[in-house]
Amino acid sequence: MEYVFSERVSSLKPSAIREIFKYAADPSVVSLSAGNPAPEAFPVKELTEISARLFNENPISVLQYSVTEGYTPLRNFLKDYMLKKHGIGRSFDELIITSGAQQVMDLATKSLCNSGDKVICEAPSFIGSLNSFRSFGAKLVGVPVESDGMNIEALENALKNNENVKFIYTIPNFQNPSGVTMSLTKRKALYELAKKYGVLIIEDNPYGDLRYSGENLPSIKSFDDDGIVIYAGSFSKVISPGIRVGWTVAPAPVVQKMVVCKQGEDVHTNIWSQMLAYEFISKYDFDAHLSKLRSLYRVKAQFAMDLLDKHLAPKITYDKIEGGLFIWCKLPDGVDMPDFCKQAVLNKVCVVPGNAFLTDENEKNQCFRINFSTPTDEQLERGIKLLAEVADRIIK
Amino acid sequence: MEYVFSERVSSLKPSAIREIFKYAADPSVVSLSAGNPAPEAFPVKELTEISARLFNENPISVLQYSVTEGYTPLRNFLKDYMLKKHGIGRSFDELIITSGAQQVMDLATKSLCNSGDKVICEAPSFIGSLNSFRSFGAKLVGVPVESDGMNIEALENALKNNENVKFIYTIPNFQNPSGVTMSLTKRKALYELAKKYGVLIIEDNPYGDLRYSGENLPSIKSFDDDGIVIYAGSFSKVISPGIRVGWTVAPAPVVQKMVVCKQGEDVHTNIWSQMLAYEFISKYDFDAHLSKLRSLYRVKAQFAMDLLDKHLAPKITYDKIEGGLFIWCKLPDGVDMPDFCKQAVLNKVCVVPGNAFLTDENEKNQCFRINFSTPTDEQLERGIKLLAEVADRIIK
Repeated sequence: MEYVFSERVSSLKPSAIREIFKYAADPSVVSLSAGNPAPEAFPVKELTEISARLFNENPISVLQYSVTEGYTPLRNFLKDYMLKKHGIGRSFDELIITSGAQQVMDLATKSLCNSGDKVICEAPSFIGSLNSFRSFGAKLVGVPVESDGMNIEALENALKNNENVKFIYTIPNFQNPSGVTMSLTKRKALYELAKKYGVLIIEDNPYGDLRYSGENLPSIKSFDDDGIVIYAGSFSKVISPGIRVGWTVAPAPVVQKMVVCKQGEDVHTNIWSQMLAYEFISKYDFDAHLSKLRSLYRVKAQFAMDLLDKHLAPKITYDKIEGGLFIWCKLPDGVDMPDFCKQAVLNKVCVVPGNAFLTDENEKNQCFRINFSTPTDEQLERGIKLLAEVADRIIK
Repeated sequence: MEYVFSERVSSLKPSAIREIFKYAADPSVVSLSAGNPAPEAFPVKELTEISARLFNENPISVLQYSVTEGYTPLRNFLKDYMLKKHGIGRSFDELIITSGAQQVMDLATKSLCNSGDKVICEAPSFIGSLNSFRSFGAKLVGVPVESDGMNIEALENALKNNENVKFIYTIPNFQNPSGVTMSLTKRKALYELAKKYGVLIIEDNPYGDLRYSGENLPSIKSFDDDGIVIYAGSFSKVISPGIRVGWTVAPAPVVQKMVVCKQGEDVHTNIWSQMLAYEFISKYDFDAHLSKLRSLYRVKAQFAMDLLDKHLAPKITYDKIEGGLFIWCKLPDGVDMPDFCKQAVLNKVCVVPGNAFLTDENEKNQCFRINFSTPTDEQLERGIKLLAEVADRIIK
C-alpha cells in the first residue's frame, strides 16, 4: 500500500540532532552532542526514598487514572512557588502539568496555529521546539540572536512584515544552542513589541535555575499584566528528564484549550512522576539541591572552557557562558562547517552542526554546539583534543 | 487580550464524560461513570518490588533521557509476544511505545489526516478517540454497531459515499461503550472492505485480555498481509493506567511519521513506566496475572448483571457482556434519556449518557453506559438501587 500522509507531516524529517545521536551511540565516539543532565546531578537517594514511600503509603493513587490538568498538590505548590520566587502568575493565569515542557510547545501550537501561520523564533533555537511548530504547518521566521538576545530591530521588522504571526518563541536564559541570555532591556522591549502587535510570547525556561555566575534576571512572564505570555517550566534539567514532567503558566482561556488537546493526546501525565516531583520540591530542600547543581555545572563549564581555550583557541571562538549546558563554538569564515562536523565524527567526536538549529537548515552557519554536562571530564578532554586534531588539519 | 484559536480546536469542547466526572467527584454521588480498573486489579506487590529494584540497580537509566521509539527491551519483548500470542506483526511492521494507547490515536491522526478528511467510527464509540480525531479537523462518519459489531452494509455505504476517508476506527473486543465484540465474519469483512477502498484501519484493543467468558477471536491485525492495520495496545487495563504506557504495531512508514510527531510532542514516554512494564511482563507470570484479572472481573460483571436483572428489568435492558468493563443499558422508547441521566445525578448516581459516544452528540439515543470495575460491590448495589428509584419514577 502507498501511504498518503497529512500535509503537515509529509515534509517533516527526524531532527538532525537525532540523526547525530546514532553516531553518538557508537561507544568509540565521544559524544559532545547530547543535552543530558550529568548523571551525578540526579537526586538519586531522595527519589529512591520518595518512590518507595509512595508505593508503601498509597500504591493505588500511584497506579490509577488521574486528571488531565495534573496532580492537584503539585499544581498548587507550583502556583505558589512560581509567584513567590519568580513573580509569575496573575489572577487570569492557570497552571497545568505537562509531559515535559516539550508538550507545552505542542499543545500551544495545536491550540493557536493554523497551517501557514507564522511563529517568530530566535535563530538559532531549540530544534525540538522548531519541529513541534513545523508539525502543525506553522511557518518559522528567524530573528538573529546577538550576545544579549534577539536583535530587537529585526524582531520588529519580522512583526511588521509578516501576517498571521501567532507567537514569538524565546528561551531567554542560557539559550539552547547559543548559550545567550537576553538582557533585561531586550526582555522588556520584546514584551512591548508583542503587546503592540497583538501576538503572544512563549517563554521557554528549562535552564533558568542553572545560572552559575552573574545575576538572575526577571522572566518575561513576570511583566505579564496583559495576559500575553505562555510560560513553560521543566523539571528535566533540575530533577530528571526521564520523568517527563513540565508545566505551563498561561492565560486561562489558552490553558483550557491546551487541556482539551492534552486529553486527546495522553489523557494525563504519568502520575507517579508528578507525585515524585511534588514530594521532592515540597518536602526536601529544593533550593539546596539547585545550589548543588549550580556548583556541579559551574565546575564542569569552567573545565570545558579551559579546554577550549587551551586546545582550540584562537582558531575556534566562543562566548563565555554563565549558565546552562551548552557552548556555542564558531569556526573562522571560509571554513566549511558541515564538513568540519563530519570530519569530527570520522575522528570519533560528535558535535551538533549549527544549521540544525536554524529556521532554514540550508542557511549558511559557522557554528557548532558542544555540551559539557553529559560527558565525564575524561571524555570531555578527549573529545576536545579530537576536535583540535580536526581543527589543526582543516583550519589553516 | 482576545485569544484567537486555531480552527481545529475552536469548536472542541471538554468531553461530556469529563464534565460528568465533576459530579462524580462529589463523594455523596455513586459513580458508575468512570472506566478505572478495580483497585484490587493492580499488581501492587510486584510493582513495588520492581520499582525498588530499578532504583537500586540502575537509578540513572530510570531518570535520564531516553529514545523516542521506546525502551528497547520492552519493544523487543512486545514484538515477540504480540507475534507469538496474537499473530500480530509482519516484516513490514514496526512497534513503538506510546504514552498510553490514546497517543496512538493522536499520532496516527496527526500523521494521516488533513483537516476535513473523514474517519469512519463505530457509533457509539470511545469519546477520547473521537475527540482526538476531531482535534485535527477530521470529520467523523458513524456506522451503527449491532450485537456482532459494525453494520457492514452501512460501512460499505460510508466508504462509497465519502471522499478522503483516511481510516476506519474500531474497538473489536468488548467495545467501549457498547460492550459488543465484533464477530470473526465481520472482522474479515471489515478488513476486505478497507483493502478494497484503500483505507487504513485503526484497531484499538485495550480490553482484549479481559474476556471472562466465550472464545477469543483473532485480531484484525493478525490478517494484515497488506499493511493496512494500525494496532493499538495498552497496559492501562491490565497493569496500570497511571503509568501511561501503550504501544502500536503498524507499517514502518506510518510508524516513522508517528515517531517524528512523538518527538515534538513529549520526546519519549516516561522511562520508569516502560521499565516497570517490561520487568513485570517479562519476569513475572503475566498470564497468571491476566487470569486473575479475568476471575475478578467475571465476578464483578455477573454481580452487576444480577443487580440490573433484579432492580431494573424489564424497564431497562442490556446485552449480556463477555468481557471488558462496561454495560450498555437501554431505556424504552419514549423515555427522555438525557433527562433520565440528569435525574440520576440528582438522585446521587452518575452514569454516562449515550449521546456522549456518538459522532454527532445531538443525535437521538436511548442508552447510557455503566461501569462496574471502579465501584465496590456495596457502591454498585447502592448505585443501581438509586437508578431503579429514578426508573420507577420516570418509566411508566
